Amino acid sequence: MDELTQDLIDGNRRALSRAITLIESTRPDHRARALQLLSELPQRQALRIGLSGTPGVGKSTFIEAFGKMLTAQGLKVAVLAVDPSSARSGGSILGDKTRMETLSRDPNAFIRPSPSRAEMGGVARRTRETVRLCEAAGFDVVLIETVGVGQSETLVAEMSDLFILLLAPAGGDELQGVKRGIMEIADIVLVNKADGELRSTAMRTVADYAGALRLLRKRSYDPAEFPKALPVSAYTGDGLEKAWENMTYLADWRREHGHFDRRRSEQARHWFVSELRAGLLARLDSLPVRERVARLGEAVAAGETSPELAASDMLDWLAQG
Amino acid sequence: MDELTQDLIDGNRRALSRAITLIESTRPDHRARALQLLSELPQRQALRIGLSGTPGVGKSTFIEAFGKMLTAQGLKVAVLAVDPSSARSGGSILGDKTRMETLSRDPNAFIRPSPSRAEMGGVARRTRETVRLCEAAGFDVVLIETVGVGQSETLVAEMSDLFILLLAPAGGDELQGVKRGIMEIADIVLVNKADGELRSTAMRTVADYAGALRLLRKRSYDPAEFPKALPVSAYTGDGLEKAWENMTYLADWRREHGHFDRRRSEQARHWFVSELRAGLLARLDSLPVRERVARLGEAVAAGETSPELAASDMLDWLAQG
Repeated sequence: MDELTQDLIDGNRRALSRAITLIESTRPDHRARALQLLSELPQRQALRIGLSGTPGVGKSTFIEAFGKMLTAQGLKVAVLAVDPSSARSGGSILGDKTRMETLSRDPNAFIRPSPSRAEMGGVARRTRETVRLCEAAGFDVVLIETVGVGQSETLVAEMSDLFILLLAPAGGDELQGVKRGIMEIADIVLVNKADGELRSTAMRTVADYAGALRLLRKRSYDPAEFPKALPVSAYTGDGLEKAWENMTYLADWRREHGHFDRRRSEQARHWFVSELRAGLLARLDSLPVRERVARLGEAVAAGETSPELAASDMLDWLAQG
Repeated sequence: MDELTQDLIDGNRRALSRAITLIESTRPDHRARALQLLSELPQRQALRIGLSGTPGVGKSTFIEAFGKMLTAQGLKVAVLAVDPSSARSGGSILGDKTRMETLSRDPNAFIRPSPSRAEMGGVARRTRETVRLCEAAGFDVVLIETVGVGQSETLVAEMSDLFILLLAPAGGDELQGVKRGIMEIADIVLVNKADGELRSTAMRTVADYAGALRLLRKRSYDPAEFPKALPVSAYTGDGLEKAWENMTYLADWRREHGHFDRRRSEQARHWFVSELRAGLLARLDSLPVRERVARLGEAVAAGETSPELAASDMLDWLAQG
């Protein structure tokens, strides 16, 4: 076994960081070594929790408070971010470690920002693989956080055991701002800032969302009371324990009824097909191919050949190797 | 040249129908013949008009009235449909010819329903190729209609010279129901049913949309007054002539300023790359490949191999084959 793999399994944080960097690399030799590394990992399971919340709901503060509560119980917590805007802009405005200063200094916590300069497909692959590295490194909980933008929530839900939606207290009108598709994948809706002046608004929002969740189709794979809405305060810490109890209760229930493993199996199968499709399309990434595609694209734009004929020519050329 | 191609160019309607059927076929020998046919087509241009409208705005009645007005001017009009629900359900509830009974009997009009039992990618390819068949067959206007669902509007806009959004008269609140992305691709918003009792509501809706359109970013490639909103009545015919004048004015303006051809060039280049990607992914469609993918998928789901390793194995296997 590779020394890096051994160090990683022993819980060495620098080894974990180096392994993630290896996984994020697009160099073919790095990729080969990353595949080797992934094939050597032991089967350890963490609870994978997807967490979505738009800017302003206090997501960083929540993760700090929630993460500290878990580490205080002796649990090891990894926090990964999937940030589509970071993929576009080449980095978030504030680094994730700056956003979660206390947690980032905790020896039982590990925070990794969203990889920059990668497409969403690349971010998804890296995050799914990083989750498995964190599991092998002995983490008990892997939090995968994302902002409520475009496809990123579905993507995070597809790699999580539980999906949590963090919301701010709001009037009934704003309730409609949450897309139905997101409500349907949420296992628990947490309404943050249930403290001070906002407490009564937060409690009303919880009731509103509880009502909205009841209108969704019943899930055969969950106990009757889920999905549910709960109030929390990242600021005072109120409700955090109860939120965690609900998460572990739901995860245990699904484990006992076979749904937990079934979900992971389906996710793995889905991921295999995504990887396969991405691998086929990666044939378009090499420099000689890109040059030929650009040249043919010019000919098509100039009307010298048709899109279908140019595509057919290019496919023949690729088939010849 | 193929006899079918010659008949098509001569304006034979049965030849056009047969050519479209050929293009819709997934049989490899049909596909080869379709590619041959497309490569033989002469360079004739029709005005390609994309038209979107949700059910209930009177889209069929509008196309009937608008199409009849054009054929009365001696123009030949083809109507193609892109219906994502048809792709799912295997056909629309009412056939397109039933919906547009008068126009379908007009010798200068040609109506082709959305192909059924095809994925959106397949529908897009078929429709783009059918547009070119209609152009070669001497049609002056090709109307590509779609319902406002999911990606279909973007897809239709990508194959059109102009994109028209047909709306019903509505209160200011409902204005927000139109997604910003759709407003941004619309060149002209037509508010239908501007007749009888609804006329004043329709005029207010026109003013509302005119205001909303002014808030969008200015387009460098259009005259200042576009995009614009106009009232029409498919029932009385009011406003149809003016809508057509605006369409031809905008198309002519873009032609004079080079934007018309540039847009078509970019669309062709984009289509080439889509075809290329679809062609690469089509390698997963053959029976032996599907069987192997299913088998590996089972192994991944059972935890016997990892998603990355299985994908890597499969790609190696495809490369050897």
